[in-house]
Formats: sequence, C-alpha cells, structure tokens
Amino acid sequence: MSSETAPVTAAILVIGDEILSGRTKDRNIGTIADFLTALGIDLREVRIVPDEEPAIVEAVNALRARHSYLFTTGGIGPTHDDITADSVARAFGVGIDIDERARAMLLERHRPEDLNPARLRMARIPFGADLIPNPVSKAPGFHIGNVFVMAGVPSIMQAMLDAVGPKLQTGVRMLSETVEAGGLPEGAFAGDLATIAAEHGAVSIGSYPSMTESGFRNRIVVRGRDGEAVASARTAIEALVERLKR
Amino acid sequence: MSSETAPVTAAILVIGDEILSGRTKDRNIGTIADFLTALGIDLREVRIVPDEEPAIVEAVNALRARHSYLFTTGGIGPTHDDITADSVARAFGVGIDIDERARAMLLERHRPEDLNPARLRMARIPFGADLIPNPVSKAPGFHIGNVFVMAGVPSIMQAMLDAVGPKLQTGVRMLSETVEAGGLPEGAFAGDLATIAAEHGAVSIGSYPSMTESGFRNRIVVRGRDGEAVASARTAIEALVERLKR
Repeated sequence: MSSETAPVTAAILVIGDEILSGRTKDRNIGTIADFLTALGIDLREVRIVPDEEPAIVEAVNALRARHSYLFTTGGIGPTHDDITADSVARAFGVGIDIDERARAMLLERHRPEDLNPARLRMARIPFGADLIPNPVSKAPGFHIGNVFVMAGVPSIMQAMLDAVGPKLQTGVRMLSETVEAGGLPEGAFAGDLATIAAEHGAVSIGSYPSMTESGFRNRIVVRGRDGEAVASARTAIEALVERLKR
Repeated sequence: MSSETAPVTAAILVIGDEILSGRTKDRNIGTIADFLTALGIDLREVRIVPDEEPAIVEAVNALRARHSYLFTTGGIGPTHDDITADSVARAFGVGIDIDERARAMLLERHRPEDLNPARLRMARIPFGADLIPNPVSKAPGFHIGNVFVMAGVPSIMQAMLDAVGPKLQTGVRMLSETVEAGGLPEGAFAGDLATIAAEHGAVSIGSYPSMTESGFRNRIVVRGRDGEAVASARTAIEALVERLKR
C-alpha cells in the first residue's frame, strides 16, 4: 500500500530551563515520538530551549514553517517563568488575553475567590486559538495554526496528546521490522548492509548497537511505508545475518 | 564570588533516526546536561535531527556559531547510516579521510585483516581534528574547532565526555537551591513568587510541579552564580512558603 500524498511531518519544542540544567530529565520527547510514529506522522526535528521569549519565538517560527505540526511542552503554568503562551502569541503576531472558555475550565477546579491573577495567567490564550482540555488539573493547552501547546508535566502532556490525536491529519503508517544480529559485530556486516540499503531505496535501514553485560548487541531496523519493500529488505538482511553467523 | 567573564555556553546535537522514531529513548541529553552544569557551563539549546547530511550540516553550523561548545552524539559507527563525520567535515568545509592515529586505535581491537572498509569508516576523521579516545570499543570521537563529536551508545558517550572534560573552559559554577513547597499549589504562591523574582534579578527562580499519588508536589528552585544572591532569594522564598503553609 503506497501513498501519493506528501508525508505528514512534525517537530517538538521542549521549553524549560530545568531540562537544560539537567535537574529534570525529559520524558515527553519519547512519548510524543511513539505517538506520532503510531499515527504515521514523521517526527523530523526536536529542539529544547530555555524559558526565554526570544528563544521560544525563534524556535516556534522556524519549526512551524517547516513542518505540518509543531508540538510544544512546558511553560504554561501560573508562575512568572511560565511564558510559553505569551511567546507563542508573539510568534504568531496576535494578541493574548484571558479567555472566557479557559476561565470556565479553571472554575471547575478553583472557587471564584481563589482565581487570583496568577491562576488567571493559565487562562491567557492567544487570540484565535482553540483549547486543549486538561482532565488532570483543568488549566488547558491550546492549538493555534499548526502549533499544539501542551503542559510539561508528563501525565498532563499525555492527556492533552490523547485529546489532540483525533484532530491530526495522519500519514501512511511507517512499518518497522527488526532483525536481531545479536553479537555479530557491525563491522562484519556493514559493507554488505550498505549494498542491501543501496538496492532497497524505498526503505531506510539503520543499525543500532547497544551495550550488554556480554558486549555489543546489534539490531538492524528496516523502516518504510511499502510493506512489500520492507519485507524484501528484511529477507535480504536476514539472509546476510544467517550467512555471517555460520 | 562573582565573575567578570562572559558565561561559557554549550549546545547539544543528537543525531539519529532512531531517537525521532521513538524506537530509542535518548539518555545522553540528561547526562551531558548534568556534566555541563557541574562545570559551570550553561547548556542553552538542544536539537535532535535525523541521519541526513543537510539537516546535520545546518544544525552544526547554527549551533557552533552561537555557543562556546557544541557536543554531538550518534552516527559515528561503521554502517552506511553513520554519516556524522562526513557531515561535520562538510559543515566546516574541510576534507575527510582515514586518519592514521584513528586506524592505530582500531588496530588495538581488530586484527589488521579484519579492518575492512566498513570498520575503516570509523577512522575517517575531518582534517585538522583531534581524536577523543574511546576506551570501550576503541573507535574514536573527535574534536574540531569548538565541536566535540561523540558516540551515541551511552556508555561510550560517557567515557568520551570524561575524556573531553579537562579540555573545556569552565565557567563559574551555577549554584542551585531548592525550596520544597510540598502540596502548596503554584497558584497560591505564584503572585508573591513573581514579586520575589523581580526583587532578586541576579538569580533565576523556577517553580516545578510534579505529580505524585497524592496530587501535585511543587519545588521552587533558585539558580545563580552569586552565593549571597542565591541565599537571599532562598530566604525570601522560604519565608513565603512558611507563611502560606500556616
């Protein structure tokens, strides 16, 4: 099954000083990568930037121009260092103010007298954006143009991603097959694998070593959208691995 | 203790289709972030790009121009998809060929008759680069200009990072103090925290929620290079938290 349509591509922008300092280890990139791959959307680039408006604006504008979708994580809470919404509004050149739909969502969690100016910051939404519901703590994300702005807390990000899924144009699912080369060294099969890769231009072939207690373990992965092409490359690689293991 | 010198900054470029597909979850970014923070070097940006020369060249040139140092991970093995060395040579506009020092390192692991063309790819080093030793599997990384090119396998990357450390100009160590706000909601302290942040311009203050089984847990982090300024902000934040908890 092949598609005549252009691939659907995406980028991720992670926003947060705490990731760059090492204090917090990002887990959202891997989650979003798996999510997009399952939908047939090609994740093409990721950037991590600090909580600084010029850096966020530049990255949002570079990435939204290049890809079908941009997903951002982080910086949409109530504290002074949460500047993602204002930065995205700046990137789009639109205004931003308290959004009544967002205020109503916050009122599902907070009493009216508790909706102080800080909490109301979480209802600041760029003009023209749609909201992304947050079943965990109510403060919404938003969707403007091809940009989806989500929370940084992994459980909330995951819930927002699930809400966003049905809105996305999906691509032809990328098929992936793995051939276990085991302890066979990359250097022993790399030459023949390059030949197979050249002969199977419809797929991409990668070799991924990992370290185990007994040394390297290598896996060869074939990826492509044409099932027959993937199967053909896989057969060739399996034959290569069998031959070298003998 | 303050410094009159400009901060030492860094970027990371992670190279690899397998990270973008979600198949492999990156662990190197967090390791390098911790390493740089301990040396007083500010990690300012991270990018992840696929195994494609134009994407690598563009990112290398953008990031090396902006920062004191660029660290790359991935794409220096023997297989056809390992194109980092050639891409970095292209980015610098220099030639690349088998490096005799690198070949000698490979001969510590492989017999001469096993140094096939694929394995010799791992000795291809851009002209003018210094080598970064690899105590795990011998194939070296390299250092050209302000760019350090390292392996993607975490244990090898870590060993290369350790080798690189003494070569780096270090900065004034960033001091970090954490105030536990516990279950105190961000929305309850965000307004006062913004005032404290405005009054303590020499430090950066961040609020970081995480989800626990009993709900949100918030930590407030003060970061800065001036110990007195960090201590002063910390004292103000502790007083705020104590007041609100009463």
